[in-house]
Amino acid sequence: MTTNLPDVAIGLDLGGTAIKGGLVARDGRVIAADTLATEADHGADHVIARMAALVGTLARRARAEGHGDDSIGVGVGVPGTLSRRDGVVIAPPNLPGWRDVPLARRVSAATGRRIVLDNDANNAALGEFLRGAGRGTRNLVMLTLGTGIGGGIIVDGRLWHGARENAGEIGHMIVQMDGRLCGCGQRGCLEAYASARATVARLIERIQAGERSVLAEAAERGDLTSEAVVQAALDGDAAARSVWEETCRYLAVACVNVQHLMSPERIILAGGMSAAGEALLASVRAALQTYGSATMGPPPDVRLAELGNDAGFIGSALSVFAAEAPGAC
Amino acid sequence: MTTNLPDVAIGLDLGGTAIKGGLVARDGRVIAADTLATEADHGADHVIARMAALVGTLARRARAEGHGDDSIGVGVGVPGTLSRRDGVVIAPPNLPGWRDVPLARRVSAATGRRIVLDNDANNAALGEFLRGAGRGTRNLVMLTLGTGIGGGIIVDGRLWHGARENAGEIGHMIVQMDGRLCGCGQRGCLEAYASARATVARLIERIQAGERSVLAEAAERGDLTSEAVVQAALDGDAAARSVWEETCRYLAVACVNVQHLMSPERIILAGGMSAAGEALLASVRAALQTYGSATMGPPPDVRLAELGNDAGFIGSALSVFAAEAPGAC
Repeated sequence: MTTNLPDVAIGLDLGGTAIKGGLVARDGRVIAADTLATEADHGADHVIARMAALVGTLARRARAEGHGDDSIGVGVGVPGTLSRRDGVVIAPPNLPGWRDVPLARRVSAATGRRIVLDNDANNAALGEFLRGAGRGTRNLVMLTLGTGIGGGIIVDGRLWHGARENAGEIGHMIVQMDGRLCGCGQRGCLEAYASARATVARLIERIQAGERSVLAEAAERGDLTSEAVVQAALDGDAAARSVWEETCRYLAVACVNVQHLMSPERIILAGGMSAAGEALLASVRAALQTYGSATMGPPPDVRLAELGNDAGFIGSALSVFAAEAPGAC
Repeated sequence: MTTNLPDVAIGLDLGGTAIKGGLVARDGRVIAADTLATEADHGADHVIARMAALVGTLARRARAEGHGDDSIGVGVGVPGTLSRRDGVVIAPPNLPGWRDVPLARRVSAATGRRIVLDNDANNAALGEFLRGAGRGTRNLVMLTLGTGIGGGIIVDGRLWHGARENAGEIGHMIVQMDGRLCGCGQRGCLEAYASARATVARLIERIQAGERSVLAEAAERGDLTSEAVVQAALDGDAAARSVWEETCRYLAVACVNVQHLMSPERIILAGGMSAAGEALLASVRAALQTYGSATMGPPPDVRLAELGNDAGFIGSALSVFAAEAPGAC
């Protein structure tokens, strides 16, 4: 069946600050990788030209490696909501001025290649599923923990997009009814408590309310990061530790909810905040003991992502292969 | 393909007080229905004999209608957790003394027929999906609102059981972290706020705290029902109305969460509490405007179930046909 199909694909992960790209083999091996600054403030035309340039670089590399085939496809992961069917990016939060950009058609025109477009968190989940922390499973849910919280869902071996193409918006699951206001307009969303931004915001609020912390100065300067909160927590700062443990408790509640609703084989924690490693995983697992129910089966199998920042472009490339057999289970 | 397969199946819905059964055609039409008291206090042997008797009655009816075929299968829906693979009922809450009962094997031995076993809420969801409020969709989530809250999930045209066979436990989604204690041991579960039992409990608490209500006497007598709460709310009782609207707000939050996570085409409200009809649906839809996000797409399409108490045995019967093609998408 795959005789005439290329054995490599190009994957792009379009972010607000960088376009990451890679030439990826069918088995998930990264043959080459490269990154360009997005320069999003120059507008969509400029960004599309840079995406095409990155595709050109990776295609030359493919030819140099003996994969000389103009039919090599390009998978693109983009932030925010999109219409996969139409290949249109609707209003990506980190790409100012973009509105209803027909990205698939335009990148295809600029590169002469077929384009497979999907949400970046979905592609990262596909990458982890096929080549990372999800290997060996048939279904999983991935939480992408960054400035916001996104997610991706694999059901029965395939990405689940949902009826309206917006499944996996785990960050907007309400875990505290009538709670903190979220950027989406809802109250009590997971993202309003447990994202990197919310973690930082909650510590700043505590400091402003009079709690002592070694991070008071950073909070004052306005350059406090979630990484600093984790490090201070590990170093014994009481306020930072309390805030971080609260973050992990909210994540545990999200995992409990995902487990009861979907019962996946595995839940994967990915994204920038997952770089905290054991400081994240051990705390979430401990909180699962408190927030989950012992009478409703074993706790979910929560693990850290394995592919780091490469998951996005690897998954984007693998989405090209997945799209070859759209009807398969 | 279906040439040699029977065009009817028998469905049973095993509850704590009644065993409902029906002879159902492939198109979902109910040819005959019958009910026997479960007499659960007489033990599992007795209940299994009654199930076999009900199957016998329905099989005779099938022969009388010209469907004379010993290969007519029997679908059985049971409450609580079970192992579908092994056909074993683990510990159904409403069938005292049952523990690890190999129900599929025993009913098969008693009737000489092949048995398809599943959770009752799953079978009811399958019934609504194929012949009720879910007709025309490919995926939906159903909430079964009764003494507790259960659920069933259809993904891409098939029941989704999850990796551990316990997907759809929507009642144990945590919507209020550190909130009310649930029977499952968790805190803040949907079921602890929005089930019929919790709705009654919340009104009793208000009356005990001094709020006036026409239902104070019923609360005192201990025979307050959720139906009475709904009726009093409709009749203008302030305490009952406030409690009922709170129930509907929690259900709206659950619908928002289901939408963000899975993005189904439709969410169906079923079970005893759905008999409240518009008093339920209109309030949940109104609360969706408050608790959902306008920036994250249209609100979920929430509807009332259509098959009432028959959904369970209809779905059980249809599960026999669904099991004929286990590999199909």
